Amino acid sequence: MTDALDLARDLIRCPSVTPAEAGALDCLEAALKPLGFACHRLTFSEEGTPDVENLYARYGAEGPVFCFAGHVDVVPVGDAAAWRHDPFGAEIEDGQLYGRGATDMKTAIACMVEAAERVIADGFTGSIAFLITGDEEGPAINGTTKVLDWMAERGETIDACLVGEPTNPVTLGEMAKIGRRGSFSGRLVVNGTQGHIAYPHLADNPLPRLVKMLDRIAAIDLDDGNEHFQPSNLEITTIDVGNTASNVIPASGQAFFNVRYNTLQNAAGLEAKIRAACDSVGGDYTLTVRNSGDPFLTEPGDLTANLHDAILAELSVEPDLSTTGGTSDARFIKNACPVVEFGLVSQTMHKVDERCAIADIPKLTAIYERVLRGFFAKG
Amino acid sequence: MTDALDLARDLIRCPSVTPAEAGALDCLEAALKPLGFACHRLTFSEEGTPDVENLYARYGAEGPVFCFAGHVDVVPVGDAAAWRHDPFGAEIEDGQLYGRGATDMKTAIACMVEAAERVIADGFTGSIAFLITGDEEGPAINGTTKVLDWMAERGETIDACLVGEPTNPVTLGEMAKIGRRGSFSGRLVVNGTQGHIAYPHLADNPLPRLVKMLDRIAAIDLDDGNEHFQPSNLEITTIDVGNTASNVIPASGQAFFNVRYNTLQNAAGLEAKIRAACDSVGGDYTLTVRNSGDPFLTEPGDLTANLHDAILAELSVEPDLSTTGGTSDARFIKNACPVVEFGLVSQTMHKVDERCAIADIPKLTAIYERVLRGFFAKG
Ligand SMILES: [Zn+2]
Ligand SMILES: [Zn+2]
Repeated sequence: MTDALDLARDLIRCPSVTPAEAGALDCLEAALKPLGFACHRLTFSEEGTPDVENLYARYGAEGPVFCFAGHVDVVPVGDAAAWRHDPFGAEIEDGQLYGRGATDMKTAIACMVEAAERVIADGFTGSIAFLITGDEEGPAINGTTKVLDWMAERGETIDACLVGEPTNPVTLGEMAKIGRRGSFSGRLVVNGTQGHIAYPHLADNPLPRLVKMLDRIAAIDLDDGNEHFQPSNLEITTIDVGNTASNVIPASGQAFFNVRYNTLQNAAGLEAKIRAACDSVGGDYTLTVRNSGDPFLTEPGDLTANLHDAILAELSVEPDLSTTGGTSDARFIKNACPVVEFGLVSQTMHKVDERCAIADIPKLTAIYERVLRGFFAKG
Repeated sequence: MTDALDLARDLIRCPSVTPAEAGALDCLEAALKPLGFACHRLTFSEEGTPDVENLYARYGAEGPVFCFAGHVDVVPVGDAAAWRHDPFGAEIEDGQLYGRGATDMKTAIACMVEAAERVIADGFTGSIAFLITGDEEGPAINGTTKVLDWMAERGETIDACLVGEPTNPVTLGEMAKIGRRGSFSGRLVVNGTQGHIAYPHLADNPLPRLVKMLDRIAAIDLDDGNEHFQPSNLEITTIDVGNTASNVIPASGQAFFNVRYNTLQNAAGLEAKIRAACDSVGGDYTLTVRNSGDPFLTEPGDLTANLHDAILAELSVEPDLSTTGGTSDARFIKNACPVVEFGLVSQTMHKVDERCAIADIPKLTAIYERVLRGFFAKG
C-alpha cells in the first residue's frame, strides 16, 4: 500500500530543480505502475528551451476520466546555507516535513496517488489519469501544454481535472481555486536624442515623455472585478535609464509593466488601451507586449461543488472558491475540461525552509479520495 | 621673448590630467618669473578630495589689477588609441596644434603670458595677475575658490578678470561669455512596500507616484529667460529602479535631475517649486538637492565693452556676449570683481583629437593684449 508521506519523502529526495527530472518521475511511475496505471513518459523539446520529461498515466479504459495534474519540478534552493535542513533531505521535525517541493507540490502528488489507490481498491466505473509535468516552474513550454497536445492527437480526453497547487494561504481547507487571472506584460522604450545638459536645444530628452506615458498607463481604469474576480490590476515593475553622467541627457528610457487581469479584459484590449495612453503623449516609442496566460473561470457546477463538499465534509471548513494569486498550469488545462485547484498551505512555497504539516497529509489524501468518489458517483 | 605657441606646446607636454600638476605650473612659473612676476605656489587640501597645486602670480605693486584666470589641469585622454597624435605630444599637422589642453585651455594661458609680456615691455600703471588652478576639471574645491580665499586674507584685490575658457563654438571671435547660468541638481527617491505582483493589496508600488512627481517636475514653468539669459531649464537625467523580477513590485525608485538656471531663479526657490510638485502627489519620498553654482551676470560696462572692442578691432567680428553653456570658475571669481570669458574654439574640447588652429594663437594673443591696454588706459 502507498503511504503518501513515504512517497512524498521519496519525491523530495530527487533534486528535480526545473528542468531536471532527477528521478522524480521514475519514483512516481514506480508507485503508479503496480496500481495498474499505463504510464507514458513524454519528452518534449523546443529550440531555445531545455528538453523536459513529463508523465501521463491512466488507470482504466472507459469514461468518465478524472485527471490529477501537477508538477514534480521545483524552484531552486536559493541560499542553501540558510536552510534548517537539507532541502533534498525530506527531514521531519516538530510535525513538519522539510524540503524543496514539500508544499509545491510533491506532497500533494503523493496524496493523489494514495487517494487513487484507495478508490481503485474499492472498484469504480471510469478512469483516473495523472498529468505530471517537469516544466511548471520553468518556461512552461515543454510541459503541460505539449502533453495536452499529445493527448489531443491520440483522442485521449479528460472530463474533469484537479491541480494540486498549494492554494491555502495559512490553513488547510480555507481556499480552493476555480479560475485564475490572466497575465499580460509589456516593455515600453521611449527614444530621444542624447545631448549635453547645457545645450538642451540640441537634444531631445525622452524621459518627460516616458514619465507622462507611465503616469497615463498607471491611471488606466480597467474594471472593478466581478463576483468571481478581483479587479484587473496593472503594476509598473521597473523603470531604467542607467545614465550615470549627471550632465548628459539620455538617448532613451525603458519601463516594464505587468497586468493581472480578469475575464472582463482580454490581451488585445489591454494592448489597445496601453497604446492609446502612449499615443496620447506621442513621440518615438516602441511597445512590446506578451500575454503569458488568459484568464479563466470554471463556472460553479459539479466539479466545484464536489471539491467544496469534500473539503467541508473532511475539515468542517467552508473553502473560499477563489481566483486570486499567480498563474498555474490550470490555464492550459481549462481548454480541455473543467479544472479546479486545491493543495497544501502555500506559506513557505519557493522560500527557504519550504515545509508542510505532516498532519495535513492524511487530510489532503482524504479530500482527494472524496473528490474521486464524488466524481465517479455522478459519472 | 615668450612665444605663445612654444609655451602652449611646453604646457601640453605636461600630462596634467586633473588633479596632477605634472610640471605644468613649473613651466608657467618659469615663463612668468623672468618677466618680473612674484609667484605663489598654493597647495590646498580637503578631506575626501585630492590635494591640488595652484599658482597666483602678480606683476606690479599698485592698482588697478587686471587678472587673467584659467586652469592647467585637463580632462582624461579617453580612448588614447583613437587619437591621431599623442595627446601629450603637442604635435602640429595641417595648421592645427593637437593635444589634451590645446583648446581647454593651456594655449589660451600661453597667449595671456605673451600678451602680458608685450604690455609690460611698453610700461603701464597698475598690475597684472595670473590666477591659475589645477582643479577646474576636478571637484573645483581645492582650486580657484581657495586661491580667492587666500587672496582675501592677504588683502590681495583684483579689479577685473578675464577667464580663458574656449568660448567660441566654431570661429574665433563669435562668442564671449559675460555670465553663466547656475547649476542645481537633485535626487528624488520614492519609497513604497515591496511585494508580489499577484498580491498588490499587500504591497505599495512607489512607481506610479514617482512618475507622477516627475511628470509634474518636468512641467514646472520656470521662466522665459531675459535679455542676457536663456530660459532656465530642468532635465530629468536618469530614472532607475533596477528590479529584474517581473513578478515583483519594487520597494523604491529613484530619479536624478539637473536645472541650469538664470538670474530670475535661485536655489531655494527651485527647491521649493520641486518640493511643491512632489507634495502635490504625496506619500513617502526623500529629495536631496545640491546647488553647484549660482548664476551670475557681469552687467554690460567697461570690462565687457573693452573685450567687445578688442575682438571687433582685431577680427572685425561682433562677438555675441553670451551666458550660455556649462559652468566655469568664473562663478567663483564674480564675487571678487567683474569677470568675462574669452578663449579659443571649443569644438574639440574634452574630445579625442583636441586641437586648436595655429592661426588663432596670434589673434587671441593680440586680443588679450588689447584688453590689457584698454583696461590700463582707463585705469
Ligand atoms: Zn507549483
Ligand atoms: Zn576649461
